Amino acid sequence: MTKLNKDPSLTHEQKLDRLGEVAVRVGLGLQPGQELVMTASLDALPLVRRITEHAYKAGASLVTTLFSDEEATLMRYRHAPDGSFDVASGWLFDGMASAFRNGAARLAIAGENPSLLAGQDPDKVSRANRARSKAYMPALELIAGFDINWTIASFASPAWARAVFPNETEEVAVAKLWDAIFAASRVDLVDPISAWGEHNKALHARTKLLNDKRYSALRFVGPGTDLTVGLADDHEWEGGASTAKNGIVCNPNIPSEEVFTTPHKNRVSGHVTSTKPLSYQGTLIEDISVRFEEGRIVDATARKGSDVLSKVLDTDEGARRLGEVALVPDSSPISASGLLFYNTLFDENAACHIALGQAYAKCIRGGDTMSPEDLAARGANKSLIHIDWMIGSRHIDIDGIGANGSVEPIMRQGEWA
Amino acid sequence: MTKLNKDPSLTHEQKLDRLGEVAVRVGLGLQPGQELVMTASLDALPLVRRITEHAYKAGASLVTTLFSDEEATLMRYRHAPDGSFDVASGWLFDGMASAFRNGAARLAIAGENPSLLAGQDPDKVSRANRARSKAYMPALELIAGFDINWTIASFASPAWARAVFPNETEEVAVAKLWDAIFAASRVDLVDPISAWGEHNKALHARTKLLNDKRYSALRFVGPGTDLTVGLADDHEWEGGASTAKNGIVCNPNIPSEEVFTTPHKNRVSGHVTSTKPLSYQGTLIEDISVRFEEGRIVDATARKGSDVLSKVLDTDEGARRLGEVALVPDSSPISASGLLFYNTLFDENAACHIALGQAYAKCIRGGDTMSPEDLAARGANKSLIHIDWMIGSRHIDIDGIGANGSVEPIMRQGEWA
Ligand SMILES: [Zn+2]
Ligand SMILES: [Zn+2]
Ligand SMILES: [Zn+2]
Ligand SMILES: [Zn+2]
Repeated sequence: MTKLNKDPSLTHEQKLDRLGEVAVRVGLGLQPGQELVMTASLDALPLVRRITEHAYKAGASLVTTLFSDEEATLMRYRHAPDGSFDVASGWLFDGMASAFRNGAARLAIAGENPSLLAGQDPDKVSRANRARSKAYMPALELIAGFDINWTIASFASPAWARAVFPNETEEVAVAKLWDAIFAASRVDLVDPISAWGEHNKALHARTKLLNDKRYSALRFVGPGTDLTVGLADDHEWEGGASTAKNGIVCNPNIPSEEVFTTPHKNRVSGHVTSTKPLSYQGTLIEDISVRFEEGRIVDATARKGSDVLSKVLDTDEGARRLGEVALVPDSSPISASGLLFYNTLFDENAACHIALGQAYAKCIRGGDTMSPEDLAARGANKSLIHIDWMIGSRHIDIDGIGANGSVEPIMRQGEWA
Repeated sequence: MTKLNKDPSLTHEQKLDRLGEVAVRVGLGLQPGQELVMTASLDALPLVRRITEHAYKAGASLVTTLFSDEEATLMRYRHAPDGSFDVASGWLFDGMASAFRNGAARLAIAGENPSLLAGQDPDKVSRANRARSKAYMPALELIAGFDINWTIASFASPAWARAVFPNETEEVAVAKLWDAIFAASRVDLVDPISAWGEHNKALHARTKLLNDKRYSALRFVGPGTDLTVGLADDHEWEGGASTAKNGIVCNPNIPSEEVFTTPHKNRVSGHVTSTKPLSYQGTLIEDISVRFEEGRIVDATARKGSDVLSKVLDTDEGARRLGEVALVPDSSPISASGLLFYNTLFDENAACHIALGQAYAKCIRGGDTMSPEDLAARGANKSLIHIDWMIGSRHIDIDGIGANGSVEPIMRQGEWA
């Protein structure tokens, strides 16, 4: 039995505890004396407590969890005056930003109900999201800019489990979703920490290969898709463990299977169709189909959630341009599970994807210390939003296009060529 | 049946909902468009949701609840490094202060385990409390200075209920504690909102009477007590509904039976013995006995929790001086229940009390708009702490001493004379 094998003797409680340990040690790389700011839904309490304990064991000075309550969110849509949907808790996000500037680490627990806001007025939903995104910007910039070590982990809420396993009882659905989360997060293996070490090594080997190639563009071809994604000048491929500006090595997503980089905001053209539904802040958006001209979405439709999609695209100028392109083989463990998670953290790690909106400075060589103007000059996009959506599948081929026009296969039928 | 009679037909859910309504309408006087910042233990969720719904119905723009988890607090004591106990989440308290400056209202839900931290290292407890008090100061000043409308309500946590009813099963204890809370909060009456209107009228009549007297001191005499509490120059008696500087009328405590004013920080002398245990941030302090000279505690003992008491007194110079003196008749409904609540919000409304530490600017005539120097010149005390402890009982007589040395009875055997 090697350390990469499954350990069938583990109980649910043990796996949950290991997920807490992986989130703290692998995800955050939390350092002694660091504060931790965590956000979570109330449902996530058992995982929050496992993380809190491991954080204190790792030497955290203080763990503060900001809980959200989906019931309270719904009460707002039910009873609050219309004008209130342009209000966000800027004071709280500013406080978080100030904690990050003082050295706090950041952990988000995902697992919300993917269709919580289905049936709510799309205008209110979009205004609330916009107000929230704007208020969150100062904190998000410190996260997206990797000023601090941060990570996202997830928990199996009943509502999410019901969406993933609609034909099971809630109890069975939750248990199955936990199994999928534990497997994707590598905590059901004999030695999860070593397994993450190996996994990070493999992802780093892949980014080195792609960085050496210096492709000027990627071309995605498949059913409903013929998309050329120009890459930013001095783009840098990233994946797996990352060193934040505070010098701490973190794994920003648990799980993570992707390698990703920054597209050029003005050099995307062609059309593309989504291959999985996108759950965006409580709304499911399905069968997205868009056309790009000179980097900008000029045409967008969706079979479901098109109201919300078109409002999202109108958030700001950068919302219609790409901030990320990411490659994930179709045989990745999460994709191999055959499940549709309705949750970006999982679905984006099961398929190649692109993201509308804000780019990661880290995905520009030297971008960490660059001014916003210098980043923009290299083609990095800026926006209040960053929304990943899935365009990969086993029907998609991807070519790398060199500066001299050379064409090399990167993926064939969804697998590394 | 009048509106002040009990309505025996009400279910628990209905009374809980009415407590939410009273907290929002009577406690906060929440205005349309106001944000609300609430703090609560996770146990309080059912009440938090009732309050949230009534807040949105009253026109709140956004309700943000900051939940705390007693388990997480204990994990810190169990695992965190020693140096961490001087750290507090200043970023969060600063954020709250900024919300208040932008017009948010404040609601605290009390009901924590009164002996959560019993058995923890008193040095860590006191350092953590001190760091927290210091970080909370900017927000507390806006609350204590009545810049905003605020209130405290409470919920029956299992741990609190077990402390109040140690001989009952947890289920019975919680039900009995809820009954006591509902009764003290007047939500089991036919028309709670009108009942609060009547109650506020009675408290205002009492403060008018005391304000007209302009006593220069109060003298408390009873078993173990002979204490003369000089009152601040231009002191003002307060009680019941209060108008905050933002013009909103609020009832800062649900329940509230007290009338109170500001002692002179240099003019307290004699000795006094506590008549009920004091639960201070997770520690029970019992049978406190102190001696004052020129306003300052020069001698202090306690049969239980004396470690924590002496550390509290060392918080800062103002911690050894009084910031409040309050009168409550022994026949007040909370006192008449015969219960010992181990919770200041209840026990202080069952007995005359004094508070160590920070004074209320509102209890100085014109104090709302006075500089800290002018407040101090009138005798108002300043400290990081404000800790009420009970010195009243049916064995205590209180006299009012006039500027000319005249002596008038205020209370005899715990009742208004
Ligand atoms: Zn991605
Ligand atoms: Zn992304
Ligand atoms: Zn009081
Ligand atoms: Zn007080």
